[in-house]
Amino acid sequence: MLNSFAFLFLLSLLIPSASQSQAAPASGSDSAVAIEQVLRTQQADWNRADLEAFMGGYWKSEKLTFFSGGSEHIGWQAAIDRYRARYSGPGHEMGQLEFSGLRIEMLGRDTAFVRGAWLLTLSDGKKPHGLFTLIFRKFPDGWKIIHDHTSSAE
Amino acid sequence: MLNSFAFLFLLSLLIPSASQSQAAPASGSDSAVAIEQVLRTQQADWNRADLEAFMGGYWKSEKLTFFSGGSEHIGWQAAIDRYRARYSGPGHEMGQLEFSGLRIEMLGRDTAFVRGAWLLTLSDGKKPHGLFTLIFRKFPDGWKIIHDHTSSAE
Repeated sequence: MLNSFAFLFLLSLLIPSASQSQAAPASGSDSAVAIEQVLRTQQADWNRADLEAFMGGYWKSEKLTFFSGGSEHIGWQAAIDRYRARYSGPGHEMGQLEFSGLRIEMLGRDTAFVRGAWLLTLSDGKKPHGLFTLIFRKFPDGWKIIHDHTSSAE
Repeated sequence: MLNSFAFLFLLSLLIPSASQSQAAPASGSDSAVAIEQVLRTQQADWNRADLEAFMGGYWKSEKLTFFSGGSEHIGWQAAIDRYRARYSGPGHEMGQLEFSGLRIEMLGRDTAFVRGAWLLTLSDGKKPHGLFTLIFRKFPDGWKIIHDHTSSAE
């Protein structure tokens, strides 16, 4: 019926890590490195006040969701509008952003969630801070945040 | 080398859906129904002031994480202690809890995340409310919350 060549060929189709390892990093740790890089890039973008670049870490979709306190913002545009109103409008500043305590955990081959803390240092010395939970999905152009839940210390 | 019997046996090991579909519901919609049931049970447990039963929806592990505002509680015990201090200590009440706007999204075979809103109605007429993001994982004894990020409207 099936010879050993056919068997090995079928095996190669059935074991995803064998067939995909050449095209893309398949291991959880490779993915975690890539996800952390997205966040480190976002941090650097924020700290040179480049909000458009910062938003590159988010899924540019109407399905992106952003939870903050009791407010839900649906879609990439609503998310950047919130950031603009809060941090780059008149009388506001972006300050210096620092992420810490990042814990990146894979949930599926192309999904992960990230827990961490944020700290903003403003020119008047104020330091608003809080926590975030991010859901990441891997797209053809890389890992993107598909959901962001951010909260502030009271 | 390998005969067809051995080949079929190996196939059965390599195709998870074939070997697991009889034991457990594998479809995303079945999982979503099971996850919603966990949340509806939690809501009912809360509303008869049974905090221990409510906590049955959470992973009973030191690895459970609970984010609220700027505070992180690590472990199941810390989570129930927070609930007790906040809602069942002297001068507090649990009130009536209502979840709404549930969106259950599968992230892997055994992982999902849930977005939703919570509303508490207290006897003095106050109605604290906010949003939550939950990460669920499927364990042998069912779907459990492994991470909860809850925030309140300001």
